[in-house]
Order: sequence, then structure tokens, then C-alpha cells
Amino acid sequence: MWFTSDNAGPAAPEVMAALVAANAGHAPSYGADPAMERVRARLREIFEAPEAAVHLVATGTAANALALACLCPPWATIFCHREAHVESDECGAPEFYTGGAKLTLVPGEHGRMTPEALAQAVAATGQVGVHNVQRGAVSLTNITEAGAVYAPGQVRALADIARAHGLPVHMDGARFANAVAALGCAPADLTWRAGVDALSFGGTKNGLPGAEAVILFDPAKSWEFELRRKRGGHLFSKHRYLSAQMEAYLEGDLWLDLAARANRAAKRLADGLRTLPGAALLHPVDGNMLFAALPREAHRHARAAGAQYYLWPFGQSLEGPGHEPVSARLVCDWSTTEADVDALLAAFADGLGAQGPVAVASG
Amino acid sequence: MWFTSDNAGPAAPEVMAALVAANAGHAPSYGADPAMERVRARLREIFEAPEAAVHLVATGTAANALALACLCPPWATIFCHREAHVESDECGAPEFYTGGAKLTLVPGEHGRMTPEALAQAVAATGQVGVHNVQRGAVSLTNITEAGAVYAPGQVRALADIARAHGLPVHMDGARFANAVAALGCAPADLTWRAGVDALSFGGTKNGLPGAEAVILFDPAKSWEFELRRKRGGHLFSKHRYLSAQMEAYLEGDLWLDLAARANRAAKRLADGLRTLPGAALLHPVDGNMLFAALPREAHRHARAAGAQYYLWPFGQSLEGPGHEPVSARLVCDWSTTEADVDALLAAFADGLGAQGPVAVASG
Amino acid sequence: MWFTSDNAGPAAPEVMAALVAANAGHAPSYGADPAMERVRARLREIFEAPEAAVHLVATGTAANALALACLCPPWATIFCHREAHVESDECGAPEFYTGGAKLTLVPGEHGRMTPEALAQAVAATGQVGVHNVQRGAVSLTNITEAGAVYAPGQVRALADIARAHGLPVHMDGARFANAVAALGCAPADLTWRAGVDALSFGGTKNGLPGAEAVILFDPAKSWEFELRRKRGGHLFSKHRYLSAQMEAYLEGDLWLDLAARANRAAKRLADGLRTLPGAALLHPVDGNMLFAALPREAHRHARAAGAQYYLWPFGQSLEGPGHEPVSARLVCDWSTTEADVDALLAAFADGLGAQGPVAVASG
Amino acid sequence: MWFTSDNAGPAAPEVMAALVAANAGHAPSYGADPAMERVRARLREIFEAPEAAVHLVATGTAANALALACLCPPWATIFCHREAHVESDECGAPEFYTGGAKLTLVPGEHGRMTPEALAQAVAATGQVGVHNVQRGAVSLTNITEAGAVYAPGQVRALADIARAHGLPVHMDGARFANAVAALGCAPADLTWRAGVDALSFGGTKNGLPGAEAVILFDPAKSWEFELRRKRGGHLFSKHRYLSAQMEAYLEGDLWLDLAARANRAAKRLADGLRTLPGAALLHPVDGNMLFAALPREAHRHARAAGAQYYLWPFGQSLEGPGHEPVSARLVCDWSTTEADVDALLAAFADGLGAQGPVAVASG
Repeated sequence: MWFTSDNAGPAAPEVMAALVAANAGHAPSYGADPAMERVRARLREIFEAPEAAVHLVATGTAANALALACLCPPWATIFCHREAHVESDECGAPEFYTGGAKLTLVPGEHGRMTPEALAQAVAATGQVGVHNVQRGAVSLTNITEAGAVYAPGQVRALADIARAHGLPVHMDGARFANAVAALGCAPADLTWRAGVDALSFGGTKNGLPGAEAVILFDPAKSWEFELRRKRGGHLFSKHRYLSAQMEAYLEGDLWLDLAARANRAAKRLADGLRTLPGAALLHPVDGNMLFAALPREAHRHARAAGAQYYLWPFGQSLEGPGHEPVSARLVCDWSTTEADVDALLAAFADGLGAQGPVAVASG
Repeated sequence: MWFTSDNAGPAAPEVMAALVAANAGHAPSYGADPAMERVRARLREIFEAPEAAVHLVATGTAANALALACLCPPWATIFCHREAHVESDECGAPEFYTGGAKLTLVPGEHGRMTPEALAQAVAATGQVGVHNVQRGAVSLTNITEAGAVYAPGQVRALADIARAHGLPVHMDGARFANAVAALGCAPADLTWRAGVDALSFGGTKNGLPGAEAVILFDPAKSWEFELRRKRGGHLFSKHRYLSAQMEAYLEGDLWLDLAARANRAAKRLADGLRTLPGAALLHPVDGNMLFAALPREAHRHARAAGAQYYLWPFGQSLEGPGHEPVSARLVCDWSTTEADVDALLAAFADGLGAQGPVAVASG
Repeated sequence: MWFTSDNAGPAAPEVMAALVAANAGHAPSYGADPAMERVRARLREIFEAPEAAVHLVATGTAANALALACLCPPWATIFCHREAHVESDECGAPEFYTGGAKLTLVPGEHGRMTPEALAQAVAATGQVGVHNVQRGAVSLTNITEAGAVYAPGQVRALADIARAHGLPVHMDGARFANAVAALGCAPADLTWRAGVDALSFGGTKNGLPGAEAVILFDPAKSWEFELRRKRGGHLFSKHRYLSAQMEAYLEGDLWLDLAARANRAAKRLADGLRTLPGAALLHPVDGNMLFAALPREAHRHARAAGAQYYLWPFGQSLEGPGHEPVSARLVCDWSTTEADVDALLAAFADGLGAQGPVAVASG
Repeated sequence: MWFTSDNAGPAAPEVMAALVAANAGHAPSYGADPAMERVRARLREIFEAPEAAVHLVATGTAANALALACLCPPWATIFCHREAHVESDECGAPEFYTGGAKLTLVPGEHGRMTPEALAQAVAATGQVGVHNVQRGAVSLTNITEAGAVYAPGQVRALADIARAHGLPVHMDGARFANAVAALGCAPADLTWRAGVDALSFGGTKNGLPGAEAVILFDPAKSWEFELRRKRGGHLFSKHRYLSAQMEAYLEGDLWLDLAARANRAAKRLADGLRTLPGAALLHPVDGNMLFAALPREAHRHARAAGAQYYLWPFGQSLEGPGHEPVSARLVCDWSTTEADVDALLAAFADGLGAQGPVAVASG
């Protein structure tokens, strides 16, 4: 019963098999392995972007920070949601890699910047010439940190504002696969066709041991990216093990299949929670994450039953009267089973004194 | 016949097996996995350093740059050999991670700084108060970039100079295993007992897909290291895959066994080259790398036979009279077979018109 | 009729005379001039801080950024008011000098952080271990960007929160003289006795051509400051011209006298505005700045009469119906005369169709 | 008898008068003062460069570091002489402002890079793709740190090498006036016509209290320069005091007149030293600096007579036998009188037991 994060789950067996298969004989290092060529070609095909630059790194923070450093100069600011991963969970990596750019925090429900709020933040920035930091870039996270998707039209609305001010757009797609699986749209529709210039295409949260692709739809900054990656210590010498992960991930659209499984588990969990008295979902459950308020007693029972997840936001306590609500983040990954979901629901239900187990139609 | 680099070889099968075994169920992320505790304990045991801080990263450049950033402030300089990896092969990663420190280049044969040259470089630095960069740290590479080892006494001689000026000492141990295998000394004798404060303990060049440990013998900077690692994008969420590599590497001293194999292959190659007319070894062959000058014709034959290696330094040409010498770097890894070595020697011999194959006693 | 900024005014004649007097013969450079010793001694006396480190730079941005870089590591955040000069008017200098720290913006009326808001911002930061930026430092501006003073008790209330979390406190005192002149308190009461660790002691906005002192009440970081200053290009070779400015500024408490003049002019202006129908003061007028809303017609008349000042915030227009209010910033400096003030008031009054000139008692 | 540095001398009286004159009434701040327009126009005229961007800062280190940051990305290296001010006397300011670029040290007599050495250094850099830092820029100092000039042809020879590799050229002209005064050439011939892209046009060492111009002959980076300057804390609010210095400096070619005076004093000193037995000039005396070896006894007498100058390089001692030579740097400035020179020569002569005072024809 692990619902802490999609980075707590195992890698997909297809990926582990590919890693083992990649371990034969010698191979050119530093990205010159033949598998990288295949990865590049496949991603260009998936994104219908034959000119895009594609590079691999091992962590999402590296992907985001390196991409942003290519888009935003040190004296400018990156507009992002106030709960964005780049703001809250990267210990200042964007600031480090850009050489000291700012992040300007934009509000919006469910982790989504609203066009109005973005427009206002951009308008309020860079008005006094050389004295304040300049407008630099826009970064949005899809799926958001609150578990909601931006549909293509929503991305486009933000990108239009960026474009009107000459600002490039970055998408943190740590859970991009979950977004595409949820929307059923073409990857291109959610990215470059909607105005996105650079995408962190996540894999680690969706069944890879540790691999992310950075896709620069405009390849003009590709060499700069490579220099920044090397200088940041993110160019793997035995690069074939990154390539192998990504190649297996893309093969037969495994990436979408894994994401769909995680999304289905989350949906099952959401459906179950909706039937629990006293439980409330705090955000749309578009992908594989959900945020729910539950009576303390439900949490205490779930914890006692071995459930692993974070109270969210941090700093809440399970002390106190059992019916007081406490909110939590529950994340499913590709390996989350129906049984895991049902066990968690049952534990919550027990805590609520409800007639468990809760019946949910098999997803 | 791959002799380009020890990062071109495959990972050891024991390590791949451990990776696969680690891929079961969920695990705490970001270094809280139980295997990391075992890795930490085992490295402390190997280094007889019960207080040492131990952290994992995926690349040698990250290990070096993060360690150096903890040791050297932005306004100081790192004394290293003029051919050091941190100077020549990391695209300025130490400068980036330190926030703009300098590297002061120290000469010395075979990639080893001499105590005299280091003392002179230190003495020549930081004499004019606030006007010049300050003395920051000393970094040495063991095995050096020229394939030579520093014995414990040689490390101590450099560290004594550092210590006399209050400077911490870093060792880039990308090939530390090869050094220990060659010297047969205790790891502690080559590091903290000889005055080393921080070690990049390499794994990637010696049979891991991509994992390095940074060992801070004085753990005071451990938290700073963690923050710098996170901020640099080098904290793995699915950290268990780093831990698993390192655990397998240390298990039963596999690390030393792998290094000994590579060293033996290099010795066999060196012995064979010594019998070839016109071939000359340019540096001591202490570990798994050798540098040899050979007539152009020998190179042309080896290339034609499919041998992979770099002319070294770069920029030489194989055009021209066949007897003109050209120098090359030849690197063995744990997977290099006697047959590989003999085939390369035979190809060289063919090029020289010698009576090949050259007979070498089985290593 | 210049009310754009206190940096638009001339230097005090005493200061210019001192500059000319300092221009005799040769003098040791880089801060070793004898006048610097006198400046240091005099500031220690004024602040009753015999151990304080004192250094001079030429700009307020340099003073703030260098001080903050000594207090806040790259992976941490500086808590400041959302309108703080370090946030809005230094083009990211704190980010640059700290090596990429963040600024966390704290609300509060009149440019003052409230203790509650600061406590909340601090509590909301650094909760998730290594993942988010750490708590770094607190910076407050006195007089604030809205023209209000923090009294010693108000400083203490913020510093107590900082201290409870182990955070150092910086005060941007670009208009510190105006604050002391307004409060009539001891400089020590407004700084180290209230918990301030480092002060940017402004001079440029109060009658100097360009000189600021940075006072580190705990001198432990003095050498680091010197290295950062040199590295930032802020160590003057002909330092005597900085020393001479500051010495003259402190001589006979000229600094307080100049500030008092500017404050009096602002008070006269405020008093006059209060009598104008349709004019509204937007913040307390504690020092030499005021913020007023006035009908467009008043602005248009003032502009036509040659008055120089900024509409504030930027982006407002004087187009449109004459009675619509538009807000402006009006800054007095030591050289602002009663006649200047009265002329501005008269111009406003004309625009309002009021019976001007407005009678104000001589200040 | 001050010969420590040209930054120990006073400012020219014309400049002080201009400063005082500039101190009338209010003026636009941050570089919008009318005098700045005149300075810009005058420098464009002097340099025959009607499009050049011109910006002022207060220190030479700021001028150099800001200019270099506009020319060289963080992942590249700046080729400069191994004794260049940017390498030895700026505490890493170029590294700081560029975001961690390297400096590659090029040898050459008298502080001049030779074309051969520069070509070799450039050829040896950036050969291994992404692994090493890239070629960034070339920076030369004119007059060099050893007191020698680069004539236009010598600048051109270096710039041609730079240009062949697409590298921009920076000239540190802290003593540019002395070079032009010595050469009698057009400023354009020594800069853009010879291939220089950016010039630090020094004033502080030649009679200003503290002002330098940065001239970007290609103005494309002008706005970037302004942002970097502001962010570095080098944009003066009361900018008129920088403008006034520079305007007076350029008026009637005062800059050349002051430099010629300093050069003449140095020539007189050199001529005198040549007559002293046991004295040896170590470099050409092209401008206002000279480097001489003298018996210890001569130094001891000069010191006893009150002469101020630095033994050079640092670290030498005056202890020991009187006839042992010790080298020194002797710098003249515009205010150095014939009497000063003669007194120093007499003191040296006394120490040598020579028949002083030495007769030198009036310069």
C-alpha cells in the first residue's frame, strides 16, 4: 500500500529487460551509442517534430533546470505556478542553473496558472527598464502538482500570453505521459502546436529507474544544452543505460500504457473515496494523483494498516479528535494494483466505521 | 577490441543482477532506501572511517564538482595537475559548482603533481591580500590521467603541503579501485590516513552502469553536500538503483576484483608492447591505462583490424610515412579479455611487419 | 521642482569641499587611506559598536547584495517585503551575489512586513528537508519603500522571529538617516540592539555623490565581505574619495542634519497636500517620501509647471477625465526648499481650481 | 616620492573642478544625465566609431569583468597573458561575472602575448567536443602589466588569430591613455581597426577619482551590458559624477596630456636608472611604469628616504648582502614631478655609493 509518490514504485519489467540486454559488449560513450539515435528518431516521430533536439538526463530536476537555463537569462524571471515543482521541490536548481534568475509565482486553482493571473504577473514585471529583472520564460507543469491536466487549449492560452511578450514556454512534463493518457490527444497538440518550446519528458515517475528526455522543439539551443548538461555533470559516460530505458519506454507506446494503468488506479481510488462519508476530493483527479481530506480517524486506521502516503501540505498532525479532517496526497503508479487501492479504501472505511469493504466496479 | 575508455565496457553481471533484484515492490525514495544504509555502513568499514559521510551520485563529474564545491569557496583556487580531469574533461563543472573558483595548474610527470611544483604553486598564490584569488583546495587524481598511481607516501607528501596552508584535499578516484588493486594497500592508507578529506570513489569506469560515491571523511559538510546535490539535480528519486549498484560493487570486494582484471589486461598489453620494435610506453603502466607511441603503420593496421582507441593527445594524424610515431591511449576494463589484448598486439605487429602473433605469458 | 528621487539632488557642499580637500598628494589605495580609519572609528562610535566591521562601497545595490551574500547561502531564501528594493529595483543583484538564492516575498502595509506575515512565511519554508530552499536571512528596509519607518520595537519584533529560526537580519538603510532623524532614537537601538546583524548605511540618497557603508555588527564575516567586494569590482583603488565623502557625512552629524531637512520638506509637502481637496496621502509620511493620489488635472498642471516626479506605480496614464485620481511618488532631498514645495503645491492647487497658493506655516 | 601605483596619485584639478561644477541642482539619475550624452558623443568622436555603445563604471575591475561577461559564455575560456590584471588582481571577478568561465594563461615577454603562444593556446583548447571548456574570448592589456605597449600591428596580429576562430577581443585599457600617448596613434587604430571588440577605457589610473568607460564597438550587446551592470551594482544613481569626471577627462584631450606627463616622468626615471651602476631595467619603458632590479642597498636607502613603491614580484626581502639585486615596480602618474624622480634617483644613488644626484636632462 504505497501511495507516497510515483517515484517509490518499481521500474517496468520491459525496461529492466532492456537494461540487461543493453549490457552486452562495448559501446560508444557520452551519447554516441546507437540506441540514442533510435530514441531521438522515435521521439521525433511521436511528437511529429522531425527537427527537434532530444537529450537525455537522469533526473527531472536536471531536465527542468537545464531546459530553463537555455530559455531564461540570469537577469530575468520565470513565471510559474506558486506550487510548481521548480519552485518548491528543487532546492533552487533553476536559480543555480540559470545563474540567478528569479521565479515569479502565479496563482491558480488546482496547480494551473490562469491566463488572467499569468497576464497580470507578466504585465507587472519588467516595467522599470534596467532596474528590475526582465521577463524571461513561462514554465507550466502538466500534469500539475495538484493532479490536474492542462488540455491543449489551456496550454495554448498561456503560451499565447508568453508569445505576445516574446517569452519562450517550458513544460515540466514529469507526468506528461499521464496527461496524454488522460487527454487522449496527440503529444504535439499538447506541446509545440500549443506553443511549447521545450519539454521535460518524464520517465522516472512512470516506470523507469531514472531517465528523462529534454525535447527542444526549436533545436537552435541544442549545443548550448549539451554544454550545460556536461558542465552540470549530467552527461552520462555509459549513456547506453539511459538510452535503453528510454527506448523500452517508447517501444509499443509502453509509456502510455504505464501511465494509463496509474491513471486507472487513481480513478478507482477516487471513485471509492467519493463513496466514503467524510472524505472529500480537493482537486480534479485527472491523472494518477489525488488529494483528499479525510477524518483523522481514517488516516490513523490506514497508517495502522500499513498505508504509506504523505499528509499534504506538510505540517499537519493526526493528533486530535477523530472526525477532524486532514488532507493527504495519494499517488498511484503503474504498479499499483486494484487490490492495493481496495485495501487502502477499506482501511479508510474502517477508520470511518463504515461498512467496508467499499464496492467499486473493477477498473 | 575496444580500448577507447573504461566507460565503453559493459557492467559486471553481478551488478546487473543486483539492479534487477532491487526492482521489487516499492521503496523509499531520495536516498532513504534501506540499501543505502548498507552501502554507507560498508564503505565506512572498507575505509575504516566510522564517521564518514557517504553520498551517491551517477557521474564522476558530479562527484568531483560537488565535493570541490564543499571544499573551495568561490573566491579561491583549486590546485590540480594540468592534465587533471577536473581541468580538461568536465567543461568547467568545478567552476560552475563552486560559483566561479579558479583551477591553478601544477606540472609533474605522468599526471602526478610533484611536491615541489605544488609547493611553488601554492606559494605563488594569494600573496597580495584581497586582490588575487585565495588558496582553496588541492585535488589529485589517483590513478592519474596518465595511468600512474600515487602511493600513500606520495599522497601524504602533497597533503602535507596542503595542510601546512590549511587547505583541504580532494582525491578524484574515478579509478581509485585500480589504484588500490595495484598498490595492495588499505583504502584508508591511500586516503584519510594520508591526509585526504574527500574522495570521489569511482564505480562507473570499473563495471557499474553509473554510480559514484562521495566520501567526506570529515562529515561536517555532509548536509551542505546534500543541498548542493539536490540543487544540482543529482539526487535520484529512485535512489535504490544507485544503491543497488554500489552495494553489489562492494559485496565480496567485487570492486577490487574488477579492477585487478583490468589492471592485468593492461599489464599484458604493456608486456606485449615492450616486445614490439618501434613501440614505446610513455608512462608507467600502474593500472588499466597505457600510453604508447607506435609507428603510424601499426596504427593503420590496428584500425583496419577493428581496434577502437584514441590517438592521444588529440589532433595527431595517421597520414604520412609509416614509421613516424604517433601516440595513443589504450584503456582496459574489467571485461577486456586476453584474446582482445592479443588481437590488438597482433594487429600492431602486423603493421610493423613483425613476426606476430607476439607471445606473451598468460596473465 | 524635482521630486523624482533623493538621488536626483546635489551633494551637500560640505561633502564636495571634503572631496576637494582629499585630493592632495598621494594616498594609499584600496581602503588603506588614513581617512578610512577615521570613518571606521566614527561609525563604531555612532553605533556604539566598537567591534563592528565597516566597509565602503559606492552604490546601495552593492551594499545590499554584498551584505546579503555574506548572510545567506546559495540554497536558501531571503525573506523581504514584496516591494523591497532588493526585490524590485536591483535587477536580481541579490540573486547574482548570493549565487542564486531566492527572495521570499512577505506582505504588509506601508512597505513594512508584519511579524505575523513574516512568521507565516518562515514557517511555510524549508519544511521538506533537502527538497526546498532553506531559510536564509531576513532583510528589511528602513525607511520602507512606502516611506514609513520601522521603530526599534518593530524591528525587534521581526528580528525575534528571525532569531528564533537562527536567521541573520539585514537592514537596507538607504534612507537610514531619515529613519533616525524621524525617530530621534540611537542608531544602535534601531540596529544591533534590535537584532540587526548587518546594515547598509546609506549616503547617496542623502547628500553624497556616491558612498554607502556596510556595517557588520558581528565582524566574523568581514574578510569574506572584502573578498566578495573585490571580486564584485566594488573595491575602489582611489578609495580616499569614498572615505572623504563618508567622513564629511558623519562630521558633526551632518548625515542627520541633511536627513532632517529632507524630512521637514516632506512634512511641509504632506501638510499642504492634506489641505488640497481631492488629494489623499496613501502612506504615513515618516521621512522624506510621500505617496499621494491626486486628480489627473492636478498632475497635468504640475507637469506643465515643470514639476518632476513619477506616477507610482508605473503604468498609470494622465489621459482621461480630470477628476480621476492618479497616484504619485514625491521625494524630497536635503536640498528641497520651502519654495520648491510651495511651488509644487501651488501647481497642484491650480490644477484643482483651488485658491492657491496654499498657506503652510514655515517648517 | 610615491611610486606605488598610478592609483595613489591625486585627481587632476580640472576634473575636481568639473565635479564641483556638476554639483548644481537636480539631475536625472542612472545615466540619463545630459553630460552622459556628451561623453558618449565625444568618445564616439575620439574613436571614430559613431555606433559604439558607451557605458561608465567606477572601477577597472568592473569594466573588465562586465565587458568579458558580455563576450564569453560560462562554459568557455578567456585567453589572456599569465600576468594579466584579470588573472592576477581581480580576485576572480571575470569568473564571477561570466558565471564560471575559465582563464587560459598565455606566455610572452613583457606582459605581451605572442601570436605564436596565443595560436598554440587556442589550438590546444576545445578539441574534445563537449568535454572541455570552449574557446571564448581573447583579452589583452595595453599598456601591459609589465609596462610595454602593444602597437597597432601587434594588436592586429592577436586579433587576427581570435577572429580566425570566431573569438571576440577585449582590451583592458586601464592605461590605454598611456599607450596612445606613447604610440601617437589614433585610438581607432589601436582598437576596432585592429580587431578589438570591447575596450575598458581607463580613467582612474590617469587622473580621475574613479571612472572608466566601457566601449562596445559592436553595440549589439549594449542592453545586456546595462543589465549586467545594474545587476552587478555598478549603475550609479547619481551618475552625473561619473559623467562629469569623464567629460573633463576628454575635454581638450586632457586624458592624453595627463598620460604624456606620466610617461615623461617614467622616461626620466628610466634614463636616470640607466646611469646607475648595478641597476637594470627589466622591461621596455613604454609608458608610465618601470621594473628595475637594484642592489638591496639602493632599496634600503630609498626606503629610508621615504620612497614608496613595491618590490615586485612580491615575496622578496631586503635582508641580506647589499649588492644582491632585488626587483621593484616603479609607477609614475600625471602628478609625478621631476623633483620626485630626481629625489628617488638620488636616494638610489646614495645607496649605491654613487656620486649623486644623477644628472638627467629636463624632460
